[in-house]
Amino acid sequence: MKVGGVHYRSIWRDADSGEVRIIDQRWLPHEFKVVTLSSLDDFAVAIRDMWVRGAPLIGATAAYGMAEAIARDPSDANFEHSSKVLNATRPTAVNLAWALERCRAALMPLRPEDRADAAWALAHEVFEEDIDINRRIGEHGLALIRDIAARKPAGEPVRLLTHCNAGWLATVDWGTATSPMYHAHEAGIPIHVWVDETRPRNQGALTSWELGVHGIPHTYVVDNAGGHLMQRGMVDLVITGTDRTTAHGDVCNKIGTYLKALAAHDNGVPFYVALPSPTIDWSLGDGVAEIPIEERPEREVTHVLGMSEGRICDVQVTPEGTPGGNPAFDVTPNRLVTGLITERGVCEASAEGLTGLFPEKVA
Amino acid sequence: MKVGGVHYRSIWRDADSGEVRIIDQRWLPHEFKVVTLSSLDDFAVAIRDMWVRGAPLIGATAAYGMAEAIARDPSDANFEHSSKVLNATRPTAVNLAWALERCRAALMPLRPEDRADAAWALAHEVFEEDIDINRRIGEHGLALIRDIAARKPAGEPVRLLTHCNAGWLATVDWGTATSPMYHAHEAGIPIHVWVDETRPRNQGALTSWELGVHGIPHTYVVDNAGGHLMQRGMVDLVITGTDRTTAHGDVCNKIGTYLKALAAHDNGVPFYVALPSPTIDWSLGDGVAEIPIEERPEREVTHVLGMSEGRICDVQVTPEGTPGGNPAFDVTPNRLVTGLITERGVCEASAEGLTGLFPEKVA
Repeated sequence: MKVGGVHYRSIWRDADSGEVRIIDQRWLPHEFKVVTLSSLDDFAVAIRDMWVRGAPLIGATAAYGMAEAIARDPSDANFEHSSKVLNATRPTAVNLAWALERCRAALMPLRPEDRADAAWALAHEVFEEDIDINRRIGEHGLALIRDIAARKPAGEPVRLLTHCNAGWLATVDWGTATSPMYHAHEAGIPIHVWVDETRPRNQGALTSWELGVHGIPHTYVVDNAGGHLMQRGMVDLVITGTDRTTAHGDVCNKIGTYLKALAAHDNGVPFYVALPSPTIDWSLGDGVAEIPIEERPEREVTHVLGMSEGRICDVQVTPEGTPGGNPAFDVTPNRLVTGLITERGVCEASAEGLTGLFPEKVA
Repeated sequence: MKVGGVHYRSIWRDADSGEVRIIDQRWLPHEFKVVTLSSLDDFAVAIRDMWVRGAPLIGATAAYGMAEAIARDPSDANFEHSSKVLNATRPTAVNLAWALERCRAALMPLRPEDRADAAWALAHEVFEEDIDINRRIGEHGLALIRDIAARKPAGEPVRLLTHCNAGWLATVDWGTATSPMYHAHEAGIPIHVWVDETRPRNQGALTSWELGVHGIPHTYVVDNAGGHLMQRGMVDLVITGTDRTTAHGDVCNKIGTYLKALAAHDNGVPFYVALPSPTIDWSLGDGVAEIPIEERPEREVTHVLGMSEGRICDVQVTPEGTPGGNPAFDVTPNRLVTGLITERGVCEASAEGLTGLFPEKVA
């Protein structure tokens, strides 16, 4: 999407130099920095130290990292070494293992001298696929926003609410939950987005940055505010992303999503979840019973990161020694989800809804 | 309650010196400081600049401030001047005007030379009344906790959740929502409290401080976490305070309370609200329709206050220029409230429930 009028992606290969560049997200939302990744080590550090983040973007970065490594040395030994180095960067990232496995399947059968071109082509394919999936999600979500706009007086904005950052910074472009918003904006439909702060890591600040530099009107609110906004009729539609969706349509997403779904349900506000189909875990049914929730470090809760006098630092908000609890995700049961927005269309959050769109998954 | 084993109140008159002392709450939860208020100006600054906070405590501070002023000069002119100075400190604080009105009614009819002793006695009466109201709330709430404890295996803690700081720091002693917790602790019933952070002003840090220095086990969590905790069966009882309760039992409290009430309702967790009866607004019925919600400065949302390298400072969490929305309260409809804990007992959150306890209020 756009940063100051210029179209950026979160990762790209420069057409002239052939260099791979990323937005170094460690400095966002306070500073916008682009860096070049020139070696396997650069790619590994960028993934491990979260210069890039978000499952789809991590997958694309790994594919480009393999291409960079193979272009230097296409031997079997270097393939194994590079794959191992990248795979060790974020052990739980599903898209990382998936991208490396895809490289192995496509490249290892080739003669070493044919691997470099094929590796660059494959990385580009991963890159384009992600953009395409998110573009489709956006088109399907756009239809929902268009319907709401049609029922409003001309010029009155459709008021959305989102939680966390399911934005283009976490993908190659468009984002998931944000893709319908960008599409509506491009279609000339006026929108306004309530951006949940999303403590403890304040990913709402990234969403605010994205929307702000692209030119979409928005307001940053604390996570406590959404219920009140819905109760007072100030939200037309909620769209969030998801980390994992069960085959029954239960949604495991950033902690706090469930509270917003409850408020939407209590106030008759449609609550949609945008997801690329690879995040559906077809082996799971009841999300509340079956999905274990990651407990993250308590410092994320007892401290807050931000900018003070020109430098990024964190402040402790709790008394010294206060124990902090930090469950990172929660599960929103399908009964609270109005619909799922996938790259194949919108469906009910249920086994029937999902298998209707993905009939090849019927056991 | 106790700070490091010593019993403190949030304000008190020293028995030996006759000086009025307060806990200077500006430094909490990071530093515990006691200061003496020696002049009308001291009292005015302490209320205006929030060295003391919480409606009941503000009322008691104003009463002591009037006593201090009248002891120096009991003339009508000084009464009027002092009352005006104190009344101007926090224009919207109901208890401030109430305390000053009470001083006027009790003291102005007296001869000036009799006013000083009467003013000190009146301030002490306000002080004792507040302690007594909150003690009674605690006793009634204790019965609820005792019932839950009785249904658990011996030694297993009753797990409570609270939002904001309805603690003793906001009253003279005991607090409202916290009073049942302190009573349970004193009765030897093991409890554990989930303390909501309560962005944007993080009053949860004050609650954590209170509970911590008194010795009550607790865990600080972000506002997003409570739904998940209830869904996974980790909360037995929610108790919050309230800023304003309607005659129908709707509850206007710190922003985010409504979301916790929704989660409690969805998971069958009892949701109680503790309130001294003066916070009931008998003129209001439907809280959602009738209570205007204060919009506070956006800096509270875009910035977070905390401790960094030994000093208290704030960090900006949003990108420069991001608009912040800051509704300070929300309304929890009575249908989501299991019961109201008042100084006269526990009742249903309804007109019938409230007039049952307060029959003198029936129109």
